[in-house]
Amino acid sequence: MKAELLATGDEIRSGALVDSNSAHIAERLEENGIDVLRHTSVGDNLDTLVSTLREIARRVDVAVVTGGLGPTTDDRSAEAAAEAAGVQLALDDNALENVESFFKKFNRPMTASNRKQAMLPQGSTVLHNPVGTAPGFSLAIERCLFFFLPGVPYEMKRMLKGHVIPAVNALQGDAVMHNRVKTITTFGLPESLAGEKVAGVEAAFPGIQLGLRAHFPQIQVKLYGRESTASALDRRLAEAGDWVMERLGAHVISENGETMETVVGRLLVQRAATLALAESCTGGLVANWLTNVAGSSDYFLFSGVTYSNRAKMDVLSVRPETLDTYGAVHEETAREMADGARRTAGSTYGLSTSGIAGPDGGTADKPVGTVCIGFSGPGGSYGKRYCFPFGKRLMNKKIFAMAALDLLRKELLKTGG
Amino acid sequence: MKAELLATGDEIRSGALVDSNSAHIAERLEENGIDVLRHTSVGDNLDTLVSTLREIARRVDVAVVTGGLGPTTDDRSAEAAAEAAGVQLALDDNALENVESFFKKFNRPMTASNRKQAMLPQGSTVLHNPVGTAPGFSLAIERCLFFFLPGVPYEMKRMLKGHVIPAVNALQGDAVMHNRVKTITTFGLPESLAGEKVAGVEAAFPGIQLGLRAHFPQIQVKLYGRESTASALDRRLAEAGDWVMERLGAHVISENGETMETVVGRLLVQRAATLALAESCTGGLVANWLTNVAGSSDYFLFSGVTYSNRAKMDVLSVRPETLDTYGAVHEETAREMADGARRTAGSTYGLSTSGIAGPDGGTADKPVGTVCIGFSGPGGSYGKRYCFPFGKRLMNKKIFAMAALDLLRKELLKTGG
Repeated sequence: MKAELLATGDEIRSGALVDSNSAHIAERLEENGIDVLRHTSVGDNLDTLVSTLREIARRVDVAVVTGGLGPTTDDRSAEAAAEAAGVQLALDDNALENVESFFKKFNRPMTASNRKQAMLPQGSTVLHNPVGTAPGFSLAIERCLFFFLPGVPYEMKRMLKGHVIPAVNALQGDAVMHNRVKTITTFGLPESLAGEKVAGVEAAFPGIQLGLRAHFPQIQVKLYGRESTASALDRRLAEAGDWVMERLGAHVISENGETMETVVGRLLVQRAATLALAESCTGGLVANWLTNVAGSSDYFLFSGVTYSNRAKMDVLSVRPETLDTYGAVHEETAREMADGARRTAGSTYGLSTSGIAGPDGGTADKPVGTVCIGFSGPGGSYGKRYCFPFGKRLMNKKIFAMAALDLLRKELLKTGG
Repeated sequence: MKAELLATGDEIRSGALVDSNSAHIAERLEENGIDVLRHTSVGDNLDTLVSTLREIARRVDVAVVTGGLGPTTDDRSAEAAAEAAGVQLALDDNALENVESFFKKFNRPMTASNRKQAMLPQGSTVLHNPVGTAPGFSLAIERCLFFFLPGVPYEMKRMLKGHVIPAVNALQGDAVMHNRVKTITTFGLPESLAGEKVAGVEAAFPGIQLGLRAHFPQIQVKLYGRESTASALDRRLAEAGDWVMERLGAHVISENGETMETVVGRLLVQRAATLALAESCTGGLVANWLTNVAGSSDYFLFSGVTYSNRAKMDVLSVRPETLDTYGAVHEETAREMADGARRTAGSTYGLSTSGIAGPDGGTADKPVGTVCIGFSGPGGSYGKRYCFPFGKRLMNKKIFAMAALDLLRKELLKTGG
């Protein structure tokens, strides 16, 4: 079964917005055995939308269109779909209920323009949007079944999973081929070196395709498999995955796409341990990542984001002599920060960062990219210095934060679960 | 002058890689007065490439193609271009020199497959690549001038700027039109309401186009202008922008795309003021945003990310009676947190967040989405409660953090600069 994707909107056409939806949709469709042949992006011009829909309808069996379902006058997907299919727009009761229930649930006033969102092409099937005001719809144009989804990524993802994937799998019936990608997330190896270590996987496991993707500061090793049964696919990917992970060793963070903060969180829960942080150069990023995980309040107690030296002394009890002798960026300062965070919060572990994220503040001795990471646990404390070769502030914050969590991860793995 | 973009490669087609090149190219072309009508992405299949090139050649004057110039057998852009133009591939001496000089410069061995990169369609003009092995080329197919560039973003950007933009401007001659987008960033209005407030701008300023973009939790109002001179364009956009900003009032954060944290940082600098935070539900996100701005150490002193009640009491001196009587999520607790952060750090201002980001922890009284924001300044302190209608943890963290910074922004504006 062949598919195409269409992303609509002047923001995408003019380059104001990067279209990340199409990659997500392509990946999910391909996993379900659909061949995605082409992605197209056009603006909000009605004639262009109509002619593009007609072109796609002549080429493929299934299409997913994103964007243009909002309440404003430049949202024209329903109008274009109706014209391409040669039908009228009509108020859809189910769609109106979707819009109204959203406003009711959140006790917000519904405007006249929101009513427009319930005007759908005749003959279409409404696709309920559980998380937004814009209902989607599906509609056949010539021999192609189109799915129209909102452009907001998180609404689109929910509706793709809830409506589109089940519908295309029902259409495919027994002819389905199973495609899947196994994602092995690593930290601490440059892309070229990671690539060399795992290059042999395609020869060792015929049919498996290898892809490397930099997801700074992590490198993802992707294994693409395709089999006629789900169980054969699972087995094949598991074998190839084990081969790859053996070669990457301790650099492997997860084998299922899990983030560093999820992995560290689970290790802490398994050990019934708690954590406090002292962050200087990472500015709260480590705490922000950790608290993105639901349930993190079970193990994360506190972070002291101490940009000023006064806060390092007052909140974390770093000794003034240490700051005088070594400065804010030093192994000993980082060690005292980690000890201080742990003592202040009464946690099992303390972890700290102090470094120079840039663009200014570097010296010959401690250039931009230098970070000292402190660790404190029941068995003692220490500080460790790293120097990363990146000039950009946001890149440095990310790699400093990831290096700190990776140090904690390795310490936790040493203690057993 | 009309243009289209084509991104090639199985990684993009299958969704393994998000195509960020097309947005960049579209933005640069539009700035130079070229109308970008459509972006297309296809895989490495030769027939598909050839037919897509021919389709584009029939529709527009200029096209930019990215990817497929590498040394491997699935890099087929030159082959496809030759077939679409009806010419042969031939070894291009200038291109070969580009490839050879790159390997020489970096003292790396050149392989036979790299020689393939110098095989270009007859009649094409080589485009020197100063930062990689793959030279690009330009070639007319029917009435359209195609530019073929590497897919590596930083090579593509160098060559777009160095070769493509000068070439299309030479083609346009005196007919060049200037396009630009003015971005007004707002917070606190739903998209539909913001849209209604500013809907009249197109009628009031003929030639100006309006676009709204949700960049959660902010709404960006975009004004697209097009004039024959840069000065007329500046004037037109300034007038339309003033009209829009008057209607959006205090919801306007910036009129030049600046982020909330940049605006708040500048307001603090202008007042020679400093800031300390106490974050519970936002988990360090406010501090992380603020410290993404270079130079933030001039005004940002400290954030106490106090997930545990113990840390709220020990670090921020929140009174145990307050926590007992009102709980962690309450105006009074937020007020004491802001006071405590300000006192601990010795800052001019204190700002705090305490709320329920979800997915669990909500009650009938304080549902998920509830946040109390505390403010402390020289004139006193207070706490304020908000309830946002979003169910997702990461969305709530973002909107809580943005609401806190917006409250601070409004307080700072009251004090004058």
